[in-house]
Amino acid sequence: MKKSVLFIVYGLVTCMFMLFFWYFGIPEDKQYKWDQNSNGLVGDIEDRYVMVTFQSGLDYWRSIMKGFEDAARTLNVTPEFRGATQYDANEQITVLEQIIAKKPAGIAITAINPEALNVTIDKAINAGIPVVLFDSGAPGSKAYSFLGTDNYSAGAQAARQFGRLANGRGKAAIITQPNQLNHEQRTKGFAETIAAEFPNIRIVKIADGKGSVQGSMQAAKAIIEQYPDVDGFFATQANGGYGIGLALKEMGKEQRKIVIGFDTDKGTLDMVKDGTINVTLAQGTWNMGYWSLMELFHQHHGIVQPDSEDMNGAHPLPPFIDTGITIVTRANVENYYAK
Amino acid sequence: MKKSVLFIVYGLVTCMFMLFFWYFGIPEDKQYKWDQNSNGLVGDIEDRYVMVTFQSGLDYWRSIMKGFEDAARTLNVTPEFRGATQYDANEQITVLEQIIAKKPAGIAITAINPEALNVTIDKAINAGIPVVLFDSGAPGSKAYSFLGTDNYSAGAQAARQFGRLANGRGKAAIITQPNQLNHEQRTKGFAETIAAEFPNIRIVKIADGKGSVQGSMQAAKAIIEQYPDVDGFFATQANGGYGIGLALKEMGKEQRKIVIGFDTDKGTLDMVKDGTINVTLAQGTWNMGYWSLMELFHQHHGIVQPDSEDMNGAHPLPPFIDTGITIVTRANVENYYAK
Repeated sequence: MKKSVLFIVYGLVTCMFMLFFWYFGIPEDKQYKWDQNSNGLVGDIEDRYVMVTFQSGLDYWRSIMKGFEDAARTLNVTPEFRGATQYDANEQITVLEQIIAKKPAGIAITAINPEALNVTIDKAINAGIPVVLFDSGAPGSKAYSFLGTDNYSAGAQAARQFGRLANGRGKAAIITQPNQLNHEQRTKGFAETIAAEFPNIRIVKIADGKGSVQGSMQAAKAIIEQYPDVDGFFATQANGGYGIGLALKEMGKEQRKIVIGFDTDKGTLDMVKDGTINVTLAQGTWNMGYWSLMELFHQHHGIVQPDSEDMNGAHPLPPFIDTGITIVTRANVENYYAK
Repeated sequence: MKKSVLFIVYGLVTCMFMLFFWYFGIPEDKQYKWDQNSNGLVGDIEDRYVMVTFQSGLDYWRSIMKGFEDAARTLNVTPEFRGATQYDANEQITVLEQIIAKKPAGIAITAINPEALNVTIDKAINAGIPVVLFDSGAPGSKAYSFLGTDNYSAGAQAARQFGRLANGRGKAAIITQPNQLNHEQRTKGFAETIAAEFPNIRIVKIADGKGSVQGSMQAAKAIIEQYPDVDGFFATQANGGYGIGLALKEMGKEQRKIVIGFDTDKGTLDMVKDGTINVTLAQGTWNMGYWSLMELFHQHHGIVQPDSEDMNGAHPLPPFIDTGITIVTRANVENYYAK
């Protein structure tokens, strides 16, 4: 009796052992590779990386958040999304302070204003939390890296589209958001390129659209009242093109103007499709999110330019990642709708 | 007797089983995480990623290669280094053709000339091999991304250093390598910034240093003979500053001139230390190599902007990664020697 019990135990143990080998056959192989080589870039699911926006309801952030989330999934870390709900620097500072208090593995933030956040960003960095800026930078802060559009170049491309559509002559107006670095640079790129390459186009007005559809609509109406012969608009921001389009639709068909929009929210795309907006500029939003997390992960794990701390200003990470611009017209607009 | 044999076998199997559990305890935990999450960015050690240079003996490439190698180790893939030994476009094309024939997982190449390699680069891309350009680009090719210095901005920074050292007046000469895009942009950035910000500085000569110490030394001597009152030089390339320094040393101490060098090879650093070269510009070379492989890896594995193939020109990867510039003077030169 005792003997047969032993046989059963022996048999069971052998079976379990074989099952175990069979089940872990693949990891065993990987284990061998790790000993020889590397287990790749893999994080800890407990590590939280936080993305911080403002006007957090904006459609615009969705693809950036998707890129951030995709990178988090790839690297096996946890993404978190926070933001100021309003267009309010103080609210964004408060949100950032709350995040710093929880010591996350990294923070990717888009600055509502190129200076207002510097002190708080530097506070995070002094506390050892990696910070990168995306979409709208804060060049005076201690953050190592900015990921976004080369905004001056985007404005220049918008100017060339305007020049082409206006046959090189006429009057242009810009609707923008003053005091936000990306919008200032787009405005400058547009204005300087018009001046340099289209001597017969004059910019009659640079107006504040307040970052909202309503504000941009009102600004467009005011410009058309003041300059009825304005040939068209450049909107430096997602809501701008849509707001201008609404103003034009409301004012009737005789008000046909050139509209160069920015970004690819549904409202803008619909207006590209129906011809109200001639051209919109698509930013590399997914890349902003994805590579923001990638840079933060590298800094958190110290995989950066060797000895950069001793080099008085050497860059541990690339200081700028240009995520690119694509021209969207009626010909390729269908591809830009969210799938 | 039979019973005791069974006891021994049973004991042995149990011990092996416990040992096995103990040894694989950690991978078992990781296995659980993979099921739930991700195994991170980890490649196949059989995947070969090739870096291609020209003048492959140059000290300059070492830190770029180190970055490429560090990324390969991190990602568990195999790095390979190839290059034309000479400053010869045809030789580089031949090397690239040989590499394409072996179908590597990706190619990072620095273009000896902004156009000569386009056809061969496009051939690689059409064969499905990801290609990125580093250090010196080929904007007319189909390669998605360039990683390197913002060369125009580097030239502008060099101009501001020159202007400061010359107290805003005098004569400057540039020793460069014509027909190589990075050197053309540095030259343009220097010349345009001098013109815009230092109206009392005149550029008397832009000479070809042929990328070599000898060529740069001869060019410097010829310029000093033609313009004995030239106040100084900007060298757009590593061998340039060193060659100018040798010329000045040979011509004697009365020939004290301002020298703005480029890069951080040992010869240049020694001359910064002894005062022959006033300032040199350090590039983010490690970052060029590291992030080149990182981008190639992403493209090889299809971890890119979703649907970019359908978007008529949307960028699957960031089109430009600016790896940064640091000003090196006698004050921080010690940190730049290879460790």
